[in-house]
Amino acid sequence: MSTDRRKIIIDCDPGHDDAIAILLAAGNPKVELIGITTVAGNAELDKTTINALKVCEIAGLNEVPVAKGAAQPLVKKRETAADIHGDSGMDGPILPAPTKQILGEHAVDFIIQKLLESDGDITLVPTGPLTNIAMALRKEPAIVPKIREIVVMGGGTFGNWTPAAEFNIFVDAEAAKVVFESGVPLTMFGLDLTHQALATPEIQERIKAIDSPVSDFVVELLKFFMHTYKEVFGFDGAPIHDACCVMYCIDPSVFTCRKLNVEIETKGEFTYGMTVVDTLGVTGKEANVNVALGLDTDKFWSIMIDALSSYSDKK
Amino acid sequence: MSTDRRKIIIDCDPGHDDAIAILLAAGNPKVELIGITTVAGNAELDKTTINALKVCEIAGLNEVPVAKGAAQPLVKKRETAADIHGDSGMDGPILPAPTKQILGEHAVDFIIQKLLESDGDITLVPTGPLTNIAMALRKEPAIVPKIREIVVMGGGTFGNWTPAAEFNIFVDAEAAKVVFESGVPLTMFGLDLTHQALATPEIQERIKAIDSPVSDFVVELLKFFMHTYKEVFGFDGAPIHDACCVMYCIDPSVFTCRKLNVEIETKGEFTYGMTVVDTLGVTGKEANVNVALGLDTDKFWSIMIDALSSYSDKK
Amino acid sequence: MSTDRRKIIIDCDPGHDDAIAILLAAGNPKVELIGITTVAGNAELDKTTINALKVCEIAGLNEVPVAKGAAQPLVKKRETAADIHGDSGMDGPILPAPTKQILGEHAVDFIIQKLLESDGDITLVPTGPLTNIAMALRKEPAIVPKIREIVVMGGGTFGNWTPAAEFNIFVDAEAAKVVFESGVPLTMFGLDLTHQALATPEIQERIKAIDSPVSDFVVELLKFFMHTYKEVFGFDGAPIHDACCVMYCIDPSVFTCRKLNVEIETKGEFTYGMTVVDTLGVTGKEANVNVALGLDTDKFWSIMIDALSSYSDKK
Amino acid sequence: MSTDRRKIIIDCDPGHDDAIAILLAAGNPKVELIGITTVAGNAELDKTTINALKVCEIAGLNEVPVAKGAAQPLVKKRETAADIHGDSGMDGPILPAPTKQILGEHAVDFIIQKLLESDGDITLVPTGPLTNIAMALRKEPAIVPKIREIVVMGGGTFGNWTPAAEFNIFVDAEAAKVVFESGVPLTMFGLDLTHQALATPEIQERIKAIDSPVSDFVVELLKFFMHTYKEVFGFDGAPIHDACCVMYCIDPSVFTCRKLNVEIETKGEFTYGMTVVDTLGVTGKEANVNVALGLDTDKFWSIMIDALSSYSDKK
Repeated sequence: MSTDRRKIIIDCDPGHDDAIAILLAAGNPKVELIGITTVAGNAELDKTTINALKVCEIAGLNEVPVAKGAAQPLVKKRETAADIHGDSGMDGPILPAPTKQILGEHAVDFIIQKLLESDGDITLVPTGPLTNIAMALRKEPAIVPKIREIVVMGGGTFGNWTPAAEFNIFVDAEAAKVVFESGVPLTMFGLDLTHQALATPEIQERIKAIDSPVSDFVVELLKFFMHTYKEVFGFDGAPIHDACCVMYCIDPSVFTCRKLNVEIETKGEFTYGMTVVDTLGVTGKEANVNVALGLDTDKFWSIMIDALSSYSDKK
Repeated sequence: MSTDRRKIIIDCDPGHDDAIAILLAAGNPKVELIGITTVAGNAELDKTTINALKVCEIAGLNEVPVAKGAAQPLVKKRETAADIHGDSGMDGPILPAPTKQILGEHAVDFIIQKLLESDGDITLVPTGPLTNIAMALRKEPAIVPKIREIVVMGGGTFGNWTPAAEFNIFVDAEAAKVVFESGVPLTMFGLDLTHQALATPEIQERIKAIDSPVSDFVVELLKFFMHTYKEVFGFDGAPIHDACCVMYCIDPSVFTCRKLNVEIETKGEFTYGMTVVDTLGVTGKEANVNVALGLDTDKFWSIMIDALSSYSDKK
Repeated sequence: MSTDRRKIIIDCDPGHDDAIAILLAAGNPKVELIGITTVAGNAELDKTTINALKVCEIAGLNEVPVAKGAAQPLVKKRETAADIHGDSGMDGPILPAPTKQILGEHAVDFIIQKLLESDGDITLVPTGPLTNIAMALRKEPAIVPKIREIVVMGGGTFGNWTPAAEFNIFVDAEAAKVVFESGVPLTMFGLDLTHQALATPEIQERIKAIDSPVSDFVVELLKFFMHTYKEVFGFDGAPIHDACCVMYCIDPSVFTCRKLNVEIETKGEFTYGMTVVDTLGVTGKEANVNVALGLDTDKFWSIMIDALSSYSDKK
Repeated sequence: MSTDRRKIIIDCDPGHDDAIAILLAAGNPKVELIGITTVAGNAELDKTTINALKVCEIAGLNEVPVAKGAAQPLVKKRETAADIHGDSGMDGPILPAPTKQILGEHAVDFIIQKLLESDGDITLVPTGPLTNIAMALRKEPAIVPKIREIVVMGGGTFGNWTPAAEFNIFVDAEAAKVVFESGVPLTMFGLDLTHQALATPEIQERIKAIDSPVSDFVVELLKFFMHTYKEVFGFDGAPIHDACCVMYCIDPSVFTCRKLNVEIETKGEFTYGMTVVDTLGVTGKEANVNVALGLDTDKFWSIMIDALSSYSDKK
């Protein structure tokens, strides 16, 4: 690689925290955002795609291609998270309709093509359901050795959509099974970790102090997101789930991780979509996932504030 | 439509009976074979693709495009049927390596493109696992109203790969679930029907009497296939499963069918891949599948012999 | 054994066909009915117990002990078949409240005690859900080698309660799993067989001609039962499911059977309670069940009419 | 009740921590141990029964009846925990063969009879698989309103036998389902709690200092148990799981608990036997279980040491 910048494709369903993940990626020099692909998840595909375009516009990401992907999970029926993200999937900030256009290419084909053309240096960063990634793996198995790493937001040792399952994995557990069994190096940012990445009122103040269009946008996002987390879960802050994956690509030392065996439950009556993490090592099965468990909170927010501040020059 | 010919795409994994299905389609004037797509099933994808090309060459199908599809099921691990079809997937006849080339396009994209360009007059005829069809439906939901009908070989009220599941559905039950729940008109040729389409020794004699390269090829196919059905199931003939679907496109009156509710079991311990057919109407659920149950044997073989005889002129 | 009479305990949930099974047993000299135990199934336990007592009274079975068993399935919630058997579980004939008393002992303990005291010559004839038998096997594993045979009414290669499951097995598939995996010799009378034991209008005439209180009772039972089978399934007669098990104890030559592997599905989404019968022998698993498949109809009805006629003397 | 003593039946599979639970119960004046019932679990039934008798003898529990229960789980095949408890189920201390006899009555009948005779003041304390309790509930549903409370050792938000399931629940998840759905007030001591009740080397020293036959016995138990927990899980102490249930009967204020919805998973591929705890309240289902989550360690060990010290007078 001629530069130190880590190439990433963010596959997302914005989504409040997806938006922040994109802003972090575009605002930090250590990663190179070579594309954004969209998937149904927090909201319907058309909405998550519009939201991705809006985030690109506010972030000035004119050259970053956006490709639209799967409107439905691999096998089961679609489910959205309007309770958490509002009807638009990104309620809160009021933004104009985007003028940026999506690619003519399907997200699955965009991902396959970029990987096949690459030197094996692209990291996939799925922050929504894993439908696009699974379809790409199944449509073109030759991409498997070309993926540097998949850094997933999803799962954990407990759930937020059901007692056992986190939303992204629950929405498409079959896709998750494909991805987790693919043999590609995989780091998982589950709820155990992301619930530590809380944008508290204090953090919100620091972001507000940046005082730029981007920071105002983020403040609006957080205000809405904190409100729903307060209502639904009683949290005193909003977990910035998706940004953790991008943060890991910027600086893995922000996190402590353990290599563990993780299986995806697709059959259970009460556990569909659970990431079954063998924390105690009782199965004797090989560790197939690098599970993020600990967070250096100061470092995390410091890098985040820096990234969000980078946009203020653009004001 | 300017002609009476029914446009079909055969999505297959040749496979002895797949080969006969192709020959039937190409030898009968009532169907227009606008493409062949391949999938892993009876054998690995490379083998079923080679076999499809070989069949095209012996049948003189120079203009029919062949597109290669999915090498693995949608979610689960791959399984092949070497016990039944031999190591090559089409053991028996010895044919030269084909010179015909496959399309550069993936089967899933070929199917999507043909459907989107069509007037809604294309019938899909999957005679292997339903992976390609399911991926097409998920990659481009806009094809749903464009498909005239899906005529599936698979399933039944009993199984041949497990006691409950027929091979094609068992290999990719998740794909079958997607297809059966798609809302597209669907006719199912399960084992209840296809075990009536037995190429007995008498039938074999009639085919042999055609005395052409194609008939010799079919005789060789049947000899191997009958042998394995004798060994494994104790049958006195080979069920020409896949050809039934093409026969239905040629002349639906060869079959008696009933509209019934059919669900795909993907969770069971002993029933994974079962097509659960509500024959007695006990569920109260809407009929979603046209299930082929009865066969006019004379008509079936008469049309088949005519189709296979059409090639003798080409000798 | 000092006599030729085969000792049986009928474990039942009367139920129209259960009633006929009891009458057949008590009216034929080749079996010795040493007890009747009751279980929830066609109706709630209290109702099936009352019905059993009523049948005993009309049949003059003063000495046959009746023990009340399980009110609920082993694990799942209770389900009854009021659609088929009416609210009382044996709608149709009007009978006085019984004066006969039940044993103080629980059915499970009655079965265990009789078996432990026996020379291994008792056959269990469950014609309802298998809850009592499973509980007995689990409460006292020492009975396993003491049971001559279990002759079950249940299951088949298709269902009548769901497309895949017959009522008795569906109601308590976990109990069925225990019984089918117990290692005890087991003969299964599933729907494949019992739907051949149809009490047609002609048969009904023959029974009517006996002209006794018992035959009148049976005629009333059949009238109601035929009506519901007509309504629900479109049948032109009532299948006398449960009596088949007793008939087999009287004369096994009435039936043709095959030893096959049968597994009980307890996990499936659409197949819970299915008896998965390996008819084609594809699993390679050992045959664990003697499956009744064919019926000598003439012999069946001849023995039945004789048994029902035996009561006319008692009039 | 004439006294303040809480009446309990311990249903157990000794087992190191079961033994300590019995000693705690017998050594504390606030509970009245009215019976011990045994079940297969940590070891085969014969071994757990012998172990229970041995513990009674060393504790001088001559009048406490011991009844033998289920040798196998309700539905599935038996599984033991020899890795953890050694071949005898209670390896470590060497004790003479017991002279105390078991009751002639089955554990299930003993439990039913005691409950039916009671004023509704008996608490069941199952510290092994829930087979006996489930069988009692199913054999005699009239006991439901007679049970004061069921205080279960089992489950948790993570597992120790599989990543998702704790041993006791895993061994008989179907029984657990029956118990958890019974409607009886239920307090659950899962691994979240019991892993806080660690007998550390310091605690072991305090017990050793009691210097009595009973304390010597406990020290031997702990030595073996700590060793296996060190080997298998890397723990620096042995969790005294089962004693927590008895401690709760002595003084509930030792624990902090939350009423939560808990479901038992019996279908999952990787999650069979999981207690699915709705900690975040996402299901909207009613709380059916009082889940012990926090422990006052000082109070716990203080009461435990007092109880174990009570035996030194008997030396």
